Amino acid sequence: MIRATRIECWAVPGLPEVGPGGDLAHLGERALAAAGGLRPWDVVVVTSKVVSKAEGLETLLSAVSPSTAALEMAGRTGQDPRLVQVVLEESRQVVRSGPGLLVTETRHGLICANAGVDRSNVGGGEVALRLPRDPDGSAAGLRSAWLGLAAGGPLGVVISDTFGRPFREGSVNVAIGVAGLPALADHRGQLDQRGYLLHASTIGSADEIAGLAELVMGKLDGLPLAVVRGLRWEGPETGAAALQRAGERDVFRYGAVPVGEVG
Amino acid sequence: MIRATRIECWAVPGLPEVGPGGDLAHLGERALAAAGGLRPWDVVVVTSKVVSKAEGLETLLSAVSPSTAALEMAGRTGQDPRLVQVVLEESRQVVRSGPGLLVTETRHGLICANAGVDRSNVGGGEVALRLPRDPDGSAAGLRSAWLGLAAGGPLGVVISDTFGRPFREGSVNVAIGVAGLPALADHRGQLDQRGYLLHASTIGSADEIAGLAELVMGKLDGLPLAVVRGLRWEGPETGAAALQRAGERDVFRYGAVPVGEVG
Repeated sequence: MIRATRIECWAVPGLPEVGPGGDLAHLGERALAAAGGLRPWDVVVVTSKVVSKAEGLETLLSAVSPSTAALEMAGRTGQDPRLVQVVLEESRQVVRSGPGLLVTETRHGLICANAGVDRSNVGGGEVALRLPRDPDGSAAGLRSAWLGLAAGGPLGVVISDTFGRPFREGSVNVAIGVAGLPALADHRGQLDQRGYLLHASTIGSADEIAGLAELVMGKLDGLPLAVVRGLRWEGPETGAAALQRAGERDVFRYGAVPVGEVG
Repeated sequence: MIRATRIECWAVPGLPEVGPGGDLAHLGERALAAAGGLRPWDVVVVTSKVVSKAEGLETLLSAVSPSTAALEMAGRTGQDPRLVQVVLEESRQVVRSGPGLLVTETRHGLICANAGVDRSNVGGGEVALRLPRDPDGSAAGLRSAWLGLAAGGPLGVVISDTFGRPFREGSVNVAIGVAGLPALADHRGQLDQRGYLLHASTIGSADEIAGLAELVMGKLDGLPLAVVRGLRWEGPETGAAALQRAGERDVFRYGAVPVGEVG
């Protein structure tokens, strides 16, 4: 169960550029403290990009040698073969590919474009930025570091990324790492005001929280930290992995090609 | 472009049960006024359920005669053939079906379970509640009625529904009707802080706004109105139809069966 009577959300300024090995926990703590600190029941949303940078997950594209499989896939998608090489390294299987399109299942089990790998410019060279290895673990680490700012909690941390989705235009932010709160609000077996069983009884609340944070983080000024205040929750603290539908429960995944079979 | 520095969101109490033909615009205006009124740049989120009820879109299941196609589909999904009949009436095509599962494309072009038809208990009988016929039009009508409360605006109205989604567990609220603000934030062609073209350049902002509102509306106490304060926007006021990906741009839809070919 995740609920709020009134929600406030704001972006946190003042986080310096975090490089490989940068102490995001410490730099984030300073920025959060300078922006007024935290209170119990706050949720801090952090973009995966800044987490990945701090965890040193950039790969210089000039240092990547594409495999035969990556070269063949790049021929199909029209992408840079070096980027495709990194994407395939991060993937369990290719779910859909075509001109300008490479949707894979990541090692975490996330289904997204380019395995969530971002192409960017860090320190002068073109780099591919991979998703955090263990986003739930990264969220838990940041939560531990920031718990003191929230008087010992409860405190939630959500690591967000921007995903496209089937059927709908426009990407939205989703939660790829969660610590300190349930990722799903489970109303199964509960009755509504009329005594009827709720039909949409499991809500991806952490995704809704990540989406909310996108509205204040913006894309251009790149504020990678936001605070959401006003939520209350109960129930088991599942990580974001609980938001991933198992393949056998997913009727839209088939057509997937295991990475081993590509090329 | 849709942005906020600080967002506040709360549910609006005091909306009475709205029956068929109920004046949602007037009843909503009273509830919004009693809860402190509106300000320019507010966005009011309304659940599709209360809009459908006001628009008289309930069908008593006892009055429904399932067609042969509905009986056959119900045999496949295990659902009530009368509900399936209503779902097929609301659909252009069946996208996926199986035990307990009937995903269709609605007449609006939305892809969702059961064409968004809710099964509920209204006035003593079991009813199927259809989605609003023209959600963008309904949003525009409510916006006109409430504009005075917001000193003439800008004012946004979003009609939300709760949709499941491929790949991820947990339903989330999405925007099926939008008036007064762009449904998508379009950053295409814009550069980030480092001068790089943004990769996730179109954001489904209205869906993020609908998801935010879900967190305060809850599922159990059923508050169908919420206010989001703090947003600013510019750009064309597209309806929620802009959030629907055209079939030819959607690599996850195939497998769809036109309704005419069912059974």
